[in-house]
Parts: sequence; C-alpha cells; structure tokens
Amino acid sequence: MTSQQKLRIERDTFGDIEVPADRYWGAQTQRSLKNFDIGGPTERMPEPLIKAFGIIKQAAATVNMTYGLDPKIGNTIIQAAEEVSKGKLLDHFPLVVWQTGSGTQTNMNANEVIANRAIEILGGQLGSKNPVHPNDHVNMSQSSNDTFPTAMHVSAAIEINERLIPGLTLLRDAIAEKSKEFEKIIKIGRTHLQDATPLTLGNEFSGYAQQLTFGIERVKTTLPRIYYLAQGGTAVGTGLNTRKGFDVNISNEIAKITGLPFQTAPNKFEALAAHDAIVEVSGALNTVAVSLMKIANDIRLLGSGPRCGFGELSLPENEPGSSIMPGKVNPTQSEAMTMVAAQVMGNHTAISISGSNGHFELNVFKPVLIKNLLHSIRILGDASVSFTKNCVVGIKANEEKINTIMQQSLMLVTALNPHIGYDNAAAVAKKAHKENLTLKESAIKLGLLTSEQFVEYVKPEQMLGPK
Amino acid sequence: MTSQQKLRIERDTFGDIEVPADRYWGAQTQRSLKNFDIGGPTERMPEPLIKAFGIIKQAAATVNMTYGLDPKIGNTIIQAAEEVSKGKLLDHFPLVVWQTGSGTQTNMNANEVIANRAIEILGGQLGSKNPVHPNDHVNMSQSSNDTFPTAMHVSAAIEINERLIPGLTLLRDAIAEKSKEFEKIIKIGRTHLQDATPLTLGNEFSGYAQQLTFGIERVKTTLPRIYYLAQGGTAVGTGLNTRKGFDVNISNEIAKITGLPFQTAPNKFEALAAHDAIVEVSGALNTVAVSLMKIANDIRLLGSGPRCGFGELSLPENEPGSSIMPGKVNPTQSEAMTMVAAQVMGNHTAISISGSNGHFELNVFKPVLIKNLLHSIRILGDASVSFTKNCVVGIKANEEKINTIMQQSLMLVTALNPHIGYDNAAAVAKKAHKENLTLKESAIKLGLLTSEQFVEYVKPEQMLGPK
Amino acid sequence: MTSQQKLRIERDTFGDIEVPADRYWGAQTQRSLKNFDIGGPTERMPEPLIKAFGIIKQAAATVNMTYGLDPKIGNTIIQAAEEVSKGKLLDHFPLVVWQTGSGTQTNMNANEVIANRAIEILGGQLGSKNPVHPNDHVNMSQSSNDTFPTAMHVSAAIEINERLIPGLTLLRDAIAEKSKEFEKIIKIGRTHLQDATPLTLGNEFSGYAQQLTFGIERVKTTLPRIYYLAQGGTAVGTGLNTRKGFDVNISNEIAKITGLPFQTAPNKFEALAAHDAIVEVSGALNTVAVSLMKIANDIRLLGSGPRCGFGELSLPENEPGSSIMPGKVNPTQSEAMTMVAAQVMGNHTAISISGSNGHFELNVFKPVLIKNLLHSIRILGDASVSFTKNCVVGIKANEEKINTIMQQSLMLVTALNPHIGYDNAAAVAKKAHKENLTLKESAIKLGLLTSEQFVEYVKPEQMLGPK
Amino acid sequence: MTSQQKLRIERDTFGDIEVPADRYWGAQTQRSLKNFDIGGPTERMPEPLIKAFGIIKQAAATVNMTYGLDPKIGNTIIQAAEEVSKGKLLDHFPLVVWQTGSGTQTNMNANEVIANRAIEILGGQLGSKNPVHPNDHVNMSQSSNDTFPTAMHVSAAIEINERLIPGLTLLRDAIAEKSKEFEKIIKIGRTHLQDATPLTLGNEFSGYAQQLTFGIERVKTTLPRIYYLAQGGTAVGTGLNTRKGFDVNISNEIAKITGLPFQTAPNKFEALAAHDAIVEVSGALNTVAVSLMKIANDIRLLGSGPRCGFGELSLPENEPGSSIMPGKVNPTQSEAMTMVAAQVMGNHTAISISGSNGHFELNVFKPVLIKNLLHSIRILGDASVSFTKNCVVGIKANEEKINTIMQQSLMLVTALNPHIGYDNAAAVAKKAHKENLTLKESAIKLGLLTSEQFVEYVKPEQMLGPK
Repeated sequence: MTSQQKLRIERDTFGDIEVPADRYWGAQTQRSLKNFDIGGPTERMPEPLIKAFGIIKQAAATVNMTYGLDPKIGNTIIQAAEEVSKGKLLDHFPLVVWQTGSGTQTNMNANEVIANRAIEILGGQLGSKNPVHPNDHVNMSQSSNDTFPTAMHVSAAIEINERLIPGLTLLRDAIAEKSKEFEKIIKIGRTHLQDATPLTLGNEFSGYAQQLTFGIERVKTTLPRIYYLAQGGTAVGTGLNTRKGFDVNISNEIAKITGLPFQTAPNKFEALAAHDAIVEVSGALNTVAVSLMKIANDIRLLGSGPRCGFGELSLPENEPGSSIMPGKVNPTQSEAMTMVAAQVMGNHTAISISGSNGHFELNVFKPVLIKNLLHSIRILGDASVSFTKNCVVGIKANEEKINTIMQQSLMLVTALNPHIGYDNAAAVAKKAHKENLTLKESAIKLGLLTSEQFVEYVKPEQMLGPK
Repeated sequence: MTSQQKLRIERDTFGDIEVPADRYWGAQTQRSLKNFDIGGPTERMPEPLIKAFGIIKQAAATVNMTYGLDPKIGNTIIQAAEEVSKGKLLDHFPLVVWQTGSGTQTNMNANEVIANRAIEILGGQLGSKNPVHPNDHVNMSQSSNDTFPTAMHVSAAIEINERLIPGLTLLRDAIAEKSKEFEKIIKIGRTHLQDATPLTLGNEFSGYAQQLTFGIERVKTTLPRIYYLAQGGTAVGTGLNTRKGFDVNISNEIAKITGLPFQTAPNKFEALAAHDAIVEVSGALNTVAVSLMKIANDIRLLGSGPRCGFGELSLPENEPGSSIMPGKVNPTQSEAMTMVAAQVMGNHTAISISGSNGHFELNVFKPVLIKNLLHSIRILGDASVSFTKNCVVGIKANEEKINTIMQQSLMLVTALNPHIGYDNAAAVAKKAHKENLTLKESAIKLGLLTSEQFVEYVKPEQMLGPK
Repeated sequence: MTSQQKLRIERDTFGDIEVPADRYWGAQTQRSLKNFDIGGPTERMPEPLIKAFGIIKQAAATVNMTYGLDPKIGNTIIQAAEEVSKGKLLDHFPLVVWQTGSGTQTNMNANEVIANRAIEILGGQLGSKNPVHPNDHVNMSQSSNDTFPTAMHVSAAIEINERLIPGLTLLRDAIAEKSKEFEKIIKIGRTHLQDATPLTLGNEFSGYAQQLTFGIERVKTTLPRIYYLAQGGTAVGTGLNTRKGFDVNISNEIAKITGLPFQTAPNKFEALAAHDAIVEVSGALNTVAVSLMKIANDIRLLGSGPRCGFGELSLPENEPGSSIMPGKVNPTQSEAMTMVAAQVMGNHTAISISGSNGHFELNVFKPVLIKNLLHSIRILGDASVSFTKNCVVGIKANEEKINTIMQQSLMLVTALNPHIGYDNAAAVAKKAHKENLTLKESAIKLGLLTSEQFVEYVKPEQMLGPK
Repeated sequence: MTSQQKLRIERDTFGDIEVPADRYWGAQTQRSLKNFDIGGPTERMPEPLIKAFGIIKQAAATVNMTYGLDPKIGNTIIQAAEEVSKGKLLDHFPLVVWQTGSGTQTNMNANEVIANRAIEILGGQLGSKNPVHPNDHVNMSQSSNDTFPTAMHVSAAIEINERLIPGLTLLRDAIAEKSKEFEKIIKIGRTHLQDATPLTLGNEFSGYAQQLTFGIERVKTTLPRIYYLAQGGTAVGTGLNTRKGFDVNISNEIAKITGLPFQTAPNKFEALAAHDAIVEVSGALNTVAVSLMKIANDIRLLGSGPRCGFGELSLPENEPGSSIMPGKVNPTQSEAMTMVAAQVMGNHTAISISGSNGHFELNVFKPVLIKNLLHSIRILGDASVSFTKNCVVGIKANEEKINTIMQQSLMLVTALNPHIGYDNAAAVAKKAHKENLTLKESAIKLGLLTSEQFVEYVKPEQMLGPK
C-alpha cells in the first residue's frame, strides 16, 4: 500500500481499523491480513472456494427471506453474492490459507464484501453496516463453522465435475482410441523389465484405459459423501440460531443453483468436527495419481531412444529438448504428468495429517485441507487435458522396430511348454541366451525339436490368448 | 540349521540344491531363502496370503480337471491345497516379503509344498516331482504373475470381511450405544479447543458413530474392484497357456470356496501391471485411520485429569499407568489406537509409492503392497475390538463436572444474539471475561438486560437446536 | 492476451512463433506457455528460483569472459542478469512448474530474457539474437541440466539463510525468554494427558526452546551438501563444452555474489541425476514441522478455555473468533502454524517421491522438487515470525489457576515413594481418587502417615529435581 | 495356553493375576498381554529394543549401587539384565507394540523379568518381589518415561552402527569398485530417458557411489542427537526421585557398556516430550531409501532385456524367474531393494505423524516410533548386504552392445556446437532422425561439414569432459 492510498474506517468487536477505500472488505479481513503475513499472494484462498462462498450466501439469503429476512436486503445480498460466485470480486479476497483453521476470516471476508457491495448497490455508505450487516444479514443463520465446510464441499464437487472428470474422461477416451488403433501390432511383453511373452500394443493401452475407467469410478464413488453439506449446523453442529428446516432448504437451494445433488448432512457434528470426506476424495485422487504415474512412465519408457532405448513409440515433438544438445526431444508431457502425480501424492499426506488432527466439535485444518484438495483436482484435471492434447493423440507406433525386437525375444519359448515341458523349454532359452543363438537354433542343437516343429509351435500371433 | 539336520536334494532349472528333509518346500524356495536374507522371521509373507494360495491352487485343480487334468492328481492337489488354506502347513512357508517383486518364489513355494505333500499322500518320493509336478500340475494354467495378484485380492477380501468390517462395526455400535446413553447430558461445546455453545454428550458421540458408519461404507465401496481377480491372465495378461473360459471358471470356483462375490477381472493387463485396487482400499483404510485418530484423541482429551484436565469422562482403568507415579491411570487404549492409526497412514504411503512404480506388463512391488495392506487391515480390526472392549463400553460420564463447567461458559452468550445483536453480545462476553464476572452480571452491568430477561433468554437446554 | 496485443516473431529450432511485443521472453518460453496450460498463475516457478537464475547467468558471464567471451557482450549479460537477480523482471517469467522435468524451458526463459534485455541495452532488435544469443552467449558453457540444479541449490540456500533460520531463531529466542519469565511458576506435569508430577512452566517452555535449537542445528547440518553446485556438469555430468576450471570458478563466483560458501560438487553425475540433497533438507524441515506441530498444539491446549479447558495460559487476542459466538477468541496463530506443519509434511512426501524417481543421468522432477522445498522454507519461516510476534511474545501465565489445580493433583503422591514405597503410595492415590479426598486425607485414613509427615514430605517445590 | 499349563500368581496395584509358571514376567506384563490383543506375534517389541533394556537396567544397577543399592541385589540385577541384553530371555518379552504409548508395560516387563530372574538366582520365589522388587530395585531412580526413550536411542544407535552403516559401506565400496572396473567403457548418456551425450559406465557408477557416500554422511550427522539420553528425567523430565548426578553417571555407564559416545540429554523435558531425534534419523533413512530406489532402478533398467531392452548390463542370475516362462531371469535383488525403499519411505510417514502428536510432558507414540525406525534400519542394512553380494559384485558390462548403440546416438552432434553453432547442429540431428541417416551423412547432405571434419570433431572419447 502506498502512503497516498485512500483509506476508510471499518469496525468490528475489536474496534476501528483502516482499510483501503477501494476494497469492499471490512475490519476482520483487514485484521487477518495484518496478523497472517505468511507465504505471499500465491497462498491466497483458492478461487473455486471464494466462488462457492458466493453461491452459499446467495442460497442463504434466498432461504432466509422465507424465514422473514427483509426482501430488499435479501435480494440485494443475492445480487452481490452472485458477483462473488461469478468471480467478479476476486480482488476483494486477499486472505491467505495460513489463517485461523476454521476459515472464519474468509467467511467474514465474504460477509463483509457482500454487505459492503450490497450497501453500495442500495446507495449506503461502505463500512456503515447499514442497511446490510455482514453478521446479522449476510451471515444470518450461519456460522463460519458450517459455512466454510459447506464451501469446501461445494467447491470440490464443482471442480471434480467440471474439471477433473472431464479431463480424465478425455484422456481415457484418447487412450482407448489408441488401444483400438494399435490392436493388431504384436509386440514383446515385458515383466520385471525383462522380455516376456508377446501381447499387442493395443492390449497394453487397454490396460491404461482400464486404469482410468476405474479411476473415474473411484472418484465418483466418493461423491455421495461430498454432496452432504454441513450448512445448518452453525457453531457446533446443533443448529443453534437457525430455524427448523433451514439446513434442508439451503442444501436444496444450493443444489438448484449448482445443478449438483447436494443434500443436508445426516449428522452435523461429524460434518464440522471431521473432514473425512475430503480425506476420502483425496484418497481417490491419490489412486488416480498412482495410475497416471504408471501410464506416463510407461509411455516415456516405450518412447525412449530414439536409437539407444526401447524405441517402440514416437511421441510428439513439441519443443526443443535441450539448451546444449541440439535436436534433442524429450517426453515432456510425461514429465509434467509424473510431477503432478508426485504433488498429488504429497498433497494427500498433507490432507491426511490435517484430517486426523481435529479436536472436539471442530477440525481447524479446514483451509489447508481445501487448498490441497482443490490443488490436486486442478492440476490433475489440467494435466490430463495437456497430456491428451500434446502427447497421447500424437503417439505413433514404430512398427518395424516393435516387430524386429519381438521376433528376437527368448520368451517366445513359452509356447513350447505344452510340447516339451517347462524344464526342457528352459534349457532351450538358456542355451540360446548363453550362446547368442536364436531359439530355433538352440532347440535343434538340443535335439528337442525339428525346425518344422519349431516353426509350427512358436507363432507370436498364436500366443496372444488362451486356447 | 544345525549340522546334523537331515537334508534331501531338490532340483530346478538352476540345478540341485539341498533342502531340510522335514520340509515340503523345494529348490526355488530354498534359493530364495538363501538369496534374500533380509529382515528375519517377522518379515515372512503374511498368513492370510499363504492361505489364499491354498484356496487358489485348490480352485485351479478343480477347474483344470474339467480341462483334462488327471483326477487322481487333481484331487490330491485339492487335498494338499486345503491343508495350506486351513493354515496347517504355515511352517513350510519360510520366505520373506523382500524377494522378487512378483512374489514368484512364494507362488513356487506353494507349488512345491503342495506338490510334495501330494506326492507324499500318493506314496511317492519328496523332490521327485512325480507323480505331481509343481509347475506342470500344481501351477497348471497359471503364472506367478496372475496367481500372486489373485492371492492379494483373495486374502485382502477375506480379511476385510472377516476382521476389519466386524471390528469397525463392533466399535461403531458400541459408540452409538454410548451416544444414546449420553443423549440427555448437556455439555459445553468446544471449537478451536475454546469454549463454545452447548451440545449433548450424546451429540458428540453421534458424530463419532457417523464417522465410523461412513468409514465402513468407504471400505465397502472399494470392494467391487477387489473382487476382480487377475487369474487367467498368466504371464502378461493375454492368458497364454490357459484354456478358454479358465479365467471365468476359476473365479467362480474361488467365489464358491470363499463365499465372496469374486469375478474375473474385465482387463487382465491392468490386473497384472497395476495394483490400483490395493492403493484404493488402502486409501479407504487411511480415511478410517484418520477418523479413529480423531475419535481416540477426543476420548483421551475428554478423559484427561483426573483433577487438572477436561475431566468430562472416566475411562476404564485397566492397568497401572506408571512405574514411578503410584495410582496413575492412563488412556492406554486410545494410545494403542492412535499408534495404529499412524501406522496405517504410514503403510498407505508405502502402498502408494509401490503402486506408482510398476513398469510395462507387471508391477513388481506386489509383496510389499500386500504385506502393508494386510497389516493395516489386521491392526485396524484388532485395535477396534480392543478399543471397544477395553475402553468404549466402560466409559462413564462425569455428569457433575460436565454440568458445572458448562454453566460457567461465556459462550452461552450466543443465545443473546437474536435479542441484543452480535456486537452487544460480544461486549457482554468480553466484559465477563476481563472482569471475571458471570454473563448475567456482565449483561446487567452493561445495562443491556435485566436479570429476568437473562434467565429467560439463556437456557442451555434451549440452545441444542434450531427453532 | 487481447486481440490488439502487439506481437513480434521469435524463432527457435522448431521455427517461428509469435510472442507479446512487450515481453523479453522468446520462442521456447512461448512454446512452453502454450504446451503446459496447467494450474494457472499461482503455479509459476517460485521467485527465489528466478532470482537464482539471474545470479548464475551473471556469474557465468563473468567466468566466460576469462575464457574469451567478448567483454561487451559479457558485461551486458551481467547487467541484464542482475536485473533478474534483483527481481525486476519477474513479469517476464510466466512459466509454470508443470513443464519439462529438467526445467529446460525455464533456463531458456532466463537465457531469452537476458539475451533480449541485453540486446535492448546494446540497441539491437528484440528476437534477433544479435549481438547476444541466448544459447551461444547467455547459456555459454552451461546446460539446463546443470544450471537448473544449481539454481535449486542457490535459491534454497539463500532462502534458508535469509528467511528460515532467522525466523526459527526469532521464535526460539522468544520461547527461551518466556522460559526464563516462567521459571518460578510451578505447575502440574501431564503425561498421557493425565496429571503427573509437577514441573515449572519455565521447564515446559525450555523443552520447546530445545526442540527449536536442535531444529536449527538439523537444518544447518544439511547445508554442506546444498552448498555443492552442479554447474559445470553440463548435459550429463561430464562437463562437455565447458572449459577446464569452469566448474570451480563459477562456484567461487556465485559464492562471492551471494556471500554463501558454495563449492563445486565433488561428483557432477550425482548432482544431475539425483536430488538427494533436496530430499535431505526437506527431511530436516519435516522434523522442524513435527516440532512446531507439538509446540503449537501444546500452547493452544494450555490456552484452552477460558473457563472449561486447561486454562493455564492466556494467548493474545488478535481478532474476533467467531461469526456467530460473540466474544470468542481462538488460538489462531497456533492454527496457522499447525496447518503450515501439515503442509510441510505433505510437501516432504512429494519431494521424497520425486527424488526417488530419477532415471540414469537426470532426475526430471526438478521443478516440483524445488517448488515444494521453497514453499516449505517460505511458510515455515513466515509462520515462525507470525507466531512469535502475534502469539508467543504476548503469552501470559494464569498463575492462580495454575497453582490451584496443581495443588489438587493426586500425582504429588509420587513424593511419598521413598517414604512408604510405591505400592502404599498407589493405595493413597487410588483411595483419594475413588472417594474424592485430598491426598493427605487419604494417607491419614489409611494410617500410613500423620498429617505432619505428609506436609513435610509432599512439597511441590521440592519435586522439581533430583536430590 | 493349554488348560494344563502351570500357572503362578503375580500381583500389582490392581491385584492378583495368573501368569504362566515357566515365564519370568509378572502382573503388569500379563495385564498388557490380555488388554492388547492386537496384531499377533509378529508385532512384538523389536529385539534390539529388548536388549537395550537389558543394557539400561544393568547400567542403572551399577550406578544405583554407588548411591546405596545393596550390592547383593545390585549385582544380581546386573547378572539378570545381562541375560536380557544378550538376548537369552527374549521368550519372556511377549508384549506387542500396540500398547500404552509410553511403553510402560514393556519397561515393567523388563523390570519383572529381571527381578524374577534375580530372585531365582538368589534362591527366592518367583512373584514374591523378594529380595528383588521390580519397581523399588530394578526400576530404581527410573521411570518408564525416561527408560523407554533411552532404550529407543540405545537400540537405534547400536543398530545403526552395527548393521546399517556397515551394510551401506559394503554396498558403496562394491559400487565404487565397479566404477573403477568400468572406467574405460564409453557409453551413451541418457537424460529424460532419451539419448544424450556420452559418458563412461564408470562415471555412472561413480554417481551411485557418491549418493551412498553422502547417505552414510547423512546418517552420521544425525547421530549426535541420538547419543543424547533421556535417562534421569524420570516421570516428567525434572529427575524427581533420582539422585544428583544420576543422569550423567548412567549415560557414562551405558557409553562404557556399548562403546558408543552416549551423553545425558541437555534438556530432559524435550527428551521425553518429543522424539524429534527419531524423526530426524528417519529423515536420513528416507533420503538413503530415495538414493537406493534410484540406484536399484537404474541397474534393473540397464540390465533390461536380454534382447528387447537397454541391455547394457548383465545381472547375476540367482534363481528361475518365472513359473511359466522357462529360462527367464529377473532383477530380483533390485526388486527387493526398491520394495525396501518404499517401505522405509512409508515408515517415515508413520514416524513423522507419530512424532508430531506428542502432548505436554510426554509423546505417547514411543513404541510405534521405535518399531518403525528399527524396521527401517534393519531392512535397509540387510538389503544392502543382499544387494551387494547377490547383485552388484556380479554385474557384468555388455561392452559390445554398449559400444554399438553409443555409436548410433544422434546426441554426438553436441560435439559440433563449438564448430557450427547450436542451431546448425540441431538441423543435422533432426535431419538424421527424420531420414534415418547417420549424423555424418546428415551433416554432409546439409553441406555443413566435410566427412573429414566430422570425423575430426565427433569423437566420443573426447566428449567426456571439459577442454
């Protein structure tokens, strides 16, 4: 803030405090700004959470009017709250995550911004709390303790539905398409990184597609508990200072606004004191990250080379790969994806620890919980899109190389098991390996098969399934 | 092994090797014993996994007979395999977890033990592989690569159903009963560890019960993917060297033996190359651990004292608490439970890392994955039973203390919000705190209420819900 | 970018590309921006890393001039690089962390910005690479593969020395001062959360101070390996395309600029392929986080109440604590600190996983590694300052309450061990507990001591140490 | 226990209880056995911890005699305690880790076993506590709260010195030797898994050796804080019921017995209430695990094949690799090592969470902390020996293959940078890649170099260092 910056006075139960004249926030926001100078602007509360507060405040005003809130006030709150939910007032939410663990000042930030904006709309004076009071009107029938967890669930549900699941689905579909494209390309299988029996490149990609299909399913199975909202529990879960039915009505209202099947939580004590539902979703994201780490790793390994690696795939070349090695191209989308996976796994630890540390009626790790969850959702969703567009759709199979090395594999010997038994087959493979022979040469030298028999028995295209 | 120990010769593709004459295991088991001297006997493959191998080998023989396996051999394999599945031959499974990452030698351990035991039953000579061959007969239509993951899923599913869910349910029910027992006891709520508005002790316990109800649900939602079996994929997922229908038939047979709804996995490539289903279950266990950490922590905090703590609960006294402080009694069951929770959270990290590190057609962290998962299941299940029996059922509420401190709480002031507004109510609480007054005294001194009004407005029993 | 935004053409080995005319970055930066649309602006490379690139490029130019780089070019590079190291050109570094895992495009971003800025200073045309070429001059004798790890170490070392250690030291000193202030206040000890033998409040705080003293030591013991720089290893660690002595000279130059004892790494292969030093530092930060979690937890528990908790401490009241409960004040600084601790522990998992996943000559999780490390350093440092200023220095002991409850503790009975033995002392405590007596009453009733003896033996002030 | 098992009566402050007549343990051990039926025998307290209790009790008796303990009693305690420290009485320590978080019953287990064994030696009656009392004599001047943490540090220090550091050193030396053996073998470097500029195989192994050298250093830098002992702090850190100088004297005595530089902790409050030193060591082990994951991964990747992988190394063939694929050999030692690494990283999470959860004067996650730490030490130490003996020493370089693929690499083009500039060199590489040419062919076609110039400039053996 420059010294010439215009200021106005705001007030709370702690007294007067100066705030920038061009900001809607009030005394409590300002106090939190001052008291929690931790981490800088990148650590601000995530945008989807702020927008969720807009939705909640809008829904609360709608329901409160049915319980007697002056419609003029109520409707203006709705108008101001919609500006928040549309992301128009993000500059008025300066608080960082590292504040009170209930997120109280962020709830107050929302109350203050909406109250002042509503006052402005109604021609009043910012900071006057008249005719719209941040606590008595905007926060009516609410407590930070139920509003913040509601905002956590609402923002997580929206981001999962609008960003994560579409991103994962896009990627899954692109991989499934590749699986089909590659369904006739027979290649060497690898177990323990060692040559094994053959399969098709399509088979391999079908496994990745299955991982993602399950991953999407995993995320979806957690949603029922994310759709439960704490709103109506107020300070400790009893619902003190709300009206009967408020909890059900506001959940319905939020469901209507968002188009998602939110419901009031069956037990508000649990909904305030624990955030197991957040930990659960993070567990699903952790599993998805584990899948993506495997998939992205495989793809970069299969694309390794171009001349000294596995070299079975060619990945799209998107940018120069080295500031010193001319012409180098790297599997950078795999790298971004695996870094994202590592981050999501780390975020999951932060979330699990935070979830385990609640006391009595309130878990006070709410901001760090939602920050990490929204972070994981965002980067997983975005990276899935990036990986699809900039890598998967452009993957090409190097069919010649794939076929050449497959034909050399010693593990085609497995096809001989039914004919000469495991122990003899092993002898053939070992001799070939030791003396650098083909399997056929080895089998003939050992007197176990004729050349004709070998050709008849060992056919990669007949090793792709049961008989 | 003492020098006089009797030995016999076993043989594999690597040649001859001596094994103890009184053990059924063969050459490959012995080699693994020698090559992986890591960690000592406590690190052996978990019992439920060994038993699952018995079930699988039994099922395989049953199905293989329908495809032509000699019934004399098949039925003897079934008999020997049942001894494994009943835990009668555990002393013949000496291998540790820290071996090959496919668990190949443990599959071979099962094959060798069952083959030798079947040979013995049929009057043959141990080590002769005649008339029952460990690979050609016991392992018929199987590979370690599909058998081990199948054993992982079968053992996890059994332990979850027989140990974990019953344990959690027992605990949930005991807590729910306490919730009912305590439903009329009004107490101070605490948020941020600070005095807040009242609730009932029953409310508090209902939150714990809800956490566990959700927890059981969380575990159950992961089971569909654990019920998918890899069996039939053999070496790389293609099902080479099996017969058509083998995968479906053996899953049905395992389902019949265990009474659990196992099915063949929809994609065997995924089932060998990834263990996301294990990571997923572990994520659910991690969430349950987070819940139990919170519950056990709350209970020990509420039981803190007896004279200098919160002191609202009396926990059962089960053992002397100190070797130096006479008469001391500690919340030891909470301590065991929270330690278990920390372990499960740590195991989850090990599982997630292991799950993310597969390559191509095979994840080779199988033993460490299943070891950690079965460990988590076991200690969560056992600790739930112990915590229930030795703590929860014996918890007593210290009603007098609960009532006394609740009556002193400044947060009863919240009941005044609708009457004098938030800002005035805050002034009452602050003055009372600063001058060590009761709320009533403070309110009267501030001229905001009469004594009669205060008594009418501030009734803890009317602060327990919406109006 | 708006449609009217002015653009210019930049070029790399992939061809032409448009970049905003008012930005110094070039083609490779622009490509990365386009190819990695992941996470949004909060995910940009951390500022300290960008500044470290400025330092390195400056040092490189200085050393390169001794090997023949044209001084006009070299000195202009130095001038431009200093603008980067001072943070004047941060707006020209738009790339996010989720890019190539070597950070190549961020190195190129630095090369491009410095080259274009130098061209501008010398009156040339942006994008012309003339007279200053981003690769041939700015990146001379460097590769992203040695530059990025060097920037990691340089930025981490600076942030540790300038932010973390001062923050921790400030906190440790404030706690040590409190320990002295409280050295005469005798209070009840608590083990297992249960009343135990007495100690002083100063003793308790001395333990916290010791934790932090050790914590600072722990961080410092990791620094020798952070002071080793990869620079000079170029692409794979061999130092190809550098000149003999370059590695030593540039480390010395960086040491001169920063005032920190950087040295060339003893083995450049390790320095590129592994980031164990980052994992190690993160381990130290994880330990510090564990300490801070304990300390901040204790402080909020001791401050719990004001009327229904432990209530031994009064924490500063910094802001209103509740949007619904008037007058509520919460231990918000403890909450911010414990959330920071959870985050640091989560970041540590991300770092450990990333560190473990290198392949061959290069670990390609560099950006996620340094992002998490700098994040942990920043929030630990900032939170330590905030916790000190807004909490620790203002903590007050509630001496009356502390003394009252201490006098009631049953564990004063421990003083009787040497006089009547452990078993008798236990009987005294148990009877007192059961019948709600004082210890003296109980001892007399049991006929074990006279009142005079009790008074003589049980003196809290004599229970504070050995005899 | 069978029904005919002989029993005797033992007694504690909770009353009488039956124990097996052939066991030395007493009432408290028996109670813990009954109350904590969690996990089964594999979950017993680790052997090194039990042995450390023997050392401590022996040292305590020695010091207590200088303060007046009857020498007949003292010397018999020493004799019995030595049997514990030598591991002769392990069958008398049945308790599992999942008990009270202070380990009180394990301390009492030691006191009871030593007392009864001493009574037996002196011809008394088991369970009589006469002439040797478990609390008054064996536990004299001690509390579980200082004894258990002392046993944690003593056992960890011994295991680190006797198992971990020797194991890591053996491995490091074997790798260093390989580095020397391979110092002349020029091979392709790989960054991003893609072909890069050359280095020697010896260079590559030198990086691994450096990682381990640093790893050993990392572990050693944590030891000073492990050598600090809590003993003498008794119940809460004050040293109540000890004698002046006891803490220093017993630490000296333990140092004498073990030959390790133990010292009394500078602050006993920290030493009981926090286990940051355990978290710190675990952090070092986590870093070592990260290093070993990288090394073992590289080795199995370099050994991948034999015909369809990188194929640069041949790893020793120790056992058959597949139950279905004859002749298959797998990198099983790498697999065991990487599984160990994943476990150590998971144990570290368990340790960090446990370390963060202490309250007031005591951290009550002591058993789970030491269990995980000793587990990590053991499996890291053992796996290092196994990996050395069964893998590293037998690694062979496939020189022909290494040379062939290196010669084909496009990244030799980097040698042209100083001659034709980065952009031209890139054009050469890209053309070669696209048209499947050699670099020389490409350079000539582009008219950038003559054949002679190419041969002069591009010499892998001259690309191994600075000029």
